[in-house]
Amino acid sequence: MQILSNVALGVDKADIVISNGTLVDVYSGALLQNYSVAIKGEWIAAIGRNLERTKGKDTYILDACGKIIAPGFIEGHTHLNYLFSPENFLRQSMAGGTTTIITESGEIIYTAGLKGLLQLLESWRAQPIKVYATIPPPLNLGKSGRAIWPSIAQMKNLLRREDIVGVGESYWQMVLSGNDHLPPLAEEALKLGKTVEGHTAGAHDEKLMAYLAYGINSCHEPVSVEDVLERLRLGVFVMIRQGSIREELDAMVKLKDMRIDFSRISLVTDGMDPRDLVKRGYLESAVQKAIDLGFDFIRAIQMVTINPATHFRLDHFTGGIAPGKHADIVILPDMQKIKPEYVLSKGKIIAQHGKLLVPPRKTQYKLPGLTKLPKHVSTPSLIIHAPVSGQNKVRVMDMVTDLVSREYITEMPSVTGMIQPDPDRDILKITLLGLKNKIVNALIRGIGLKDGAVASSYIWETYGIIAVGTNDNDIAKVINHIIQQGGGIAVCAHGSITTELPLPIAGIITSKPMSEVAQRQNEIQREVERLGCKVPDIVKTISVLPSAAIPFLRITEDGLIDLKSGKVTSLFATS
Amino acid sequence: MQILSNVALGVDKADIVISNGTLVDVYSGALLQNYSVAIKGEWIAAIGRNLERTKGKDTYILDACGKIIAPGFIEGHTHLNYLFSPENFLRQSMAGGTTTIITESGEIIYTAGLKGLLQLLESWRAQPIKVYATIPPPLNLGKSGRAIWPSIAQMKNLLRREDIVGVGESYWQMVLSGNDHLPPLAEEALKLGKTVEGHTAGAHDEKLMAYLAYGINSCHEPVSVEDVLERLRLGVFVMIRQGSIREELDAMVKLKDMRIDFSRISLVTDGMDPRDLVKRGYLESAVQKAIDLGFDFIRAIQMVTINPATHFRLDHFTGGIAPGKHADIVILPDMQKIKPEYVLSKGKIIAQHGKLLVPPRKTQYKLPGLTKLPKHVSTPSLIIHAPVSGQNKVRVMDMVTDLVSREYITEMPSVTGMIQPDPDRDILKITLLGLKNKIVNALIRGIGLKDGAVASSYIWETYGIIAVGTNDNDIAKVINHIIQQGGGIAVCAHGSITTELPLPIAGIITSKPMSEVAQRQNEIQREVERLGCKVPDIVKTISVLPSAAIPFLRITEDGLIDLKSGKVTSLFATS
Repeated sequence: MQILSNVALGVDKADIVISNGTLVDVYSGALLQNYSVAIKGEWIAAIGRNLERTKGKDTYILDACGKIIAPGFIEGHTHLNYLFSPENFLRQSMAGGTTTIITESGEIIYTAGLKGLLQLLESWRAQPIKVYATIPPPLNLGKSGRAIWPSIAQMKNLLRREDIVGVGESYWQMVLSGNDHLPPLAEEALKLGKTVEGHTAGAHDEKLMAYLAYGINSCHEPVSVEDVLERLRLGVFVMIRQGSIREELDAMVKLKDMRIDFSRISLVTDGMDPRDLVKRGYLESAVQKAIDLGFDFIRAIQMVTINPATHFRLDHFTGGIAPGKHADIVILPDMQKIKPEYVLSKGKIIAQHGKLLVPPRKTQYKLPGLTKLPKHVSTPSLIIHAPVSGQNKVRVMDMVTDLVSREYITEMPSVTGMIQPDPDRDILKITLLGLKNKIVNALIRGIGLKDGAVASSYIWETYGIIAVGTNDNDIAKVINHIIQQGGGIAVCAHGSITTELPLPIAGIITSKPMSEVAQRQNEIQREVERLGCKVPDIVKTISVLPSAAIPFLRITEDGLIDLKSGKVTSLFATS
Repeated sequence: MQILSNVALGVDKADIVISNGTLVDVYSGALLQNYSVAIKGEWIAAIGRNLERTKGKDTYILDACGKIIAPGFIEGHTHLNYLFSPENFLRQSMAGGTTTIITESGEIIYTAGLKGLLQLLESWRAQPIKVYATIPPPLNLGKSGRAIWPSIAQMKNLLRREDIVGVGESYWQMVLSGNDHLPPLAEEALKLGKTVEGHTAGAHDEKLMAYLAYGINSCHEPVSVEDVLERLRLGVFVMIRQGSIREELDAMVKLKDMRIDFSRISLVTDGMDPRDLVKRGYLESAVQKAIDLGFDFIRAIQMVTINPATHFRLDHFTGGIAPGKHADIVILPDMQKIKPEYVLSKGKIIAQHGKLLVPPRKTQYKLPGLTKLPKHVSTPSLIIHAPVSGQNKVRVMDMVTDLVSREYITEMPSVTGMIQPDPDRDILKITLLGLKNKIVNALIRGIGLKDGAVASSYIWETYGIIAVGTNDNDIAKVINHIIQQGGGIAVCAHGSITTELPLPIAGIITSKPMSEVAQRQNEIQREVERLGCKVPDIVKTISVLPSAAIPFLRITEDGLIDLKSGKVTSLFATS
């Protein structure tokens, strides 16, 4: 602090001076012309029109004449346990200007428990940019999966860590029907001055408020301007999502001209798919989209800087360019192009013209793959026994979009005592292999496969493997192959694995570089399309089927669950 | 949380429903017509246009038709150790609509140390409204006074308390010239996610930034629009002061039409004098002034609700009207009149039409008066010995305003070896009695007394008594009288105490009701004016003379201090 103070006075000299740019003042909401920024170590020492006093013979001058100097971007909600390793994610994303990330951490807990979480936190520590986590309550629909979750006492202890800024998202329906973890965690977080992140998709008025009563203070699920306003007025910090899972900005365009307070609105990705990361980049692409839609430049920058910093109570350290804050800074060519020429994080120039200058810290994972599954699944265990000979009334998971599944009741014949997939009617078998040797077989419509099977161990809120296929041989084969790899995504046709992405770390992560992950994803999608698949992203579609996040009929290791009732329902419908 | 949630759903019923008012939505910055608020216990369960479902047979309906429903006011910077007891302060102020207060706590530490602070914190606990404290580093100009301050380790521990929200104000000049307490305290506070309050009066550009480098994140001392903008742009949370010590709003009126972000601007009193509290009320009078000056109503309300709540990271609990927040609410007759018809705090109606319905909790102080002073001061100890016979060149504290003192060098004759006060030239004797039997005698111009003496043990950043008088007999008499009382303010003329306000609690507090304190203050002022006093508030004037907060020549138990150099200077000037 003393050194920083001396640099401000000109007694000590700055390491770097960014000179003569247009500084985005996110605090009062102004553009300050001909401003310079003096940096010492990790910190900003001074800003202003004349910083000559801070320049010494060893000071590096970064000329920003004609350019924009903005705070580094802050991602308020994402998922970084998704296929790629933290190291490879950072390698891919840091040059885009994001210097602080708040990520959910549930995925790794579902498959590797507390040990997995601790290793991921360790891998995010001391990286060129800041990564913080939120830790969610368990959201498994299937009951046996809960066994892997840390205890409430352990979770409360975790909340005291500096790198954990709050409680992660919880689904409102689950909370209203009683989630034993959320209330004690929320209470502890609020006591500690940390946040309780929410997930209010589809909730309105009384149900929304009933959920907020648990201390929830954010939502990243609004899909309309009305949703945004309703949440804002209820004191919720609103995150507008613009990433791989959904892109809401187009629907929000009316917001930009509204005379409302923007300080509690943010822009987040909620996770980027490797293919999008490679193609479009990271959070900067969301900011670019806002600019392209005509959002005010300063507001767009505020939405990814001071606003999330304030929400997560990181504004003492980052979110704006001011003395005593981390030197987290992007230099943009102009106000139309969100493509940083320079990225500074904690005082270091970490990227220049899209090229990374400071690589992420290497991390070693000592996490095994999915070891709690049976060693082998036999075809007899995949049989759906028909209760009656002749026609059987069955409850099919019917994909009404590539994510939303509805119940579809139809008749299927008993064939030698079994219900068999019927690719002609696009009714396939879906199998979930979970903890404690649980195997659940059911039926799904809307995938389109005419041949073969596809399976993945990257699935939401579940430990295990989910497979969809046209025949039991290929389903067994692909599941057994993934078991052997310790985790992964694979396609099987005519008894052979035709393409795959092994995920040996906790069954959900590979250490392969991002571009290779993206390439494998493309291969997998091309292969299932060759086999007849109709959904645009088969892995995304099957990975969400065990989750309560998306309605209506879901599959868990306990059986089919009807989200409307929250209860297990039978594969066979009674009339 | 579960009960609250059930009230939102209408399953359980509200205790109170405030119905059909215009709700001030401080989050998005809007007025919501025909809104109701359902309250259960201490908390808000629901808001909206239709809350019929939350009403039961025992629900109390508070009709707000045609009225404004706003969040309770939050005072971001004040001093509650000033003459009155916490209990009497609350009795006087709560009906005005302030439901959360952040107060400095230094005064009690200067005279009663850690024990004093702990008792005051205890007296603020479990009151009808919320009171939080900030704890400052020691700011004594006199060195011996530091002895009474808690250790850095003790202060760091205090920062962990829930009722302490940050580090209190520090004077920038002292910090830049080295204050051993501030850096470790600031670091600890920031680590804990708490604030570091600043005091940047007169600081600009490089000196301001050099001070901010210590992690300072607020200032309540701007005196112009330019000051406000400079601080905002440097990431400082700006508090505009409108109270007894200064009233800045008139000078800030240009702010109201500026298109800047107001979310980091607040309105504070920085302390109200008992006479003002009785006459004008508390924070509500500052809000009224902003409205009268034409500030936008919503912004004015935001400045005393969500803005300070967010700065102090209390926004999870208060600062807005939303489910899951404390039911801290004022009902105003209209947008012009900041005079609450009802005040609710933590779900209770605590005041109605200015009348308190819920009294403050009674508190007992076990703090002695000033016991560390000598039992008796003799007139010989007040003598200023003249170095030479004939004329002596002396350095006089010259009051250029009623608060600011400048050095004035003049000649005074030796009278039988002594320098005597000369009321004809308005040069009086000023005496500071401090710890360790230290007595400092000096000279002051601009007070105007023609006769008698006045003294006070309520003095800034100092343990002891300060007296100003025309003769040694009256000075000794008034000091000795205050010593006997354990503390107080008194006037003495011709050897008799003519009026007084005893302050037996830590030498700075009385348990008398606010109206009586105000009456005594008026009597004291009338009495000194009868004796010739020219300053409008003699107690205020003499109480700040030992403080570094106001320039330039100050008096401490170590002698006269020249704030420009920060050094002790002699009463006798060499030419």
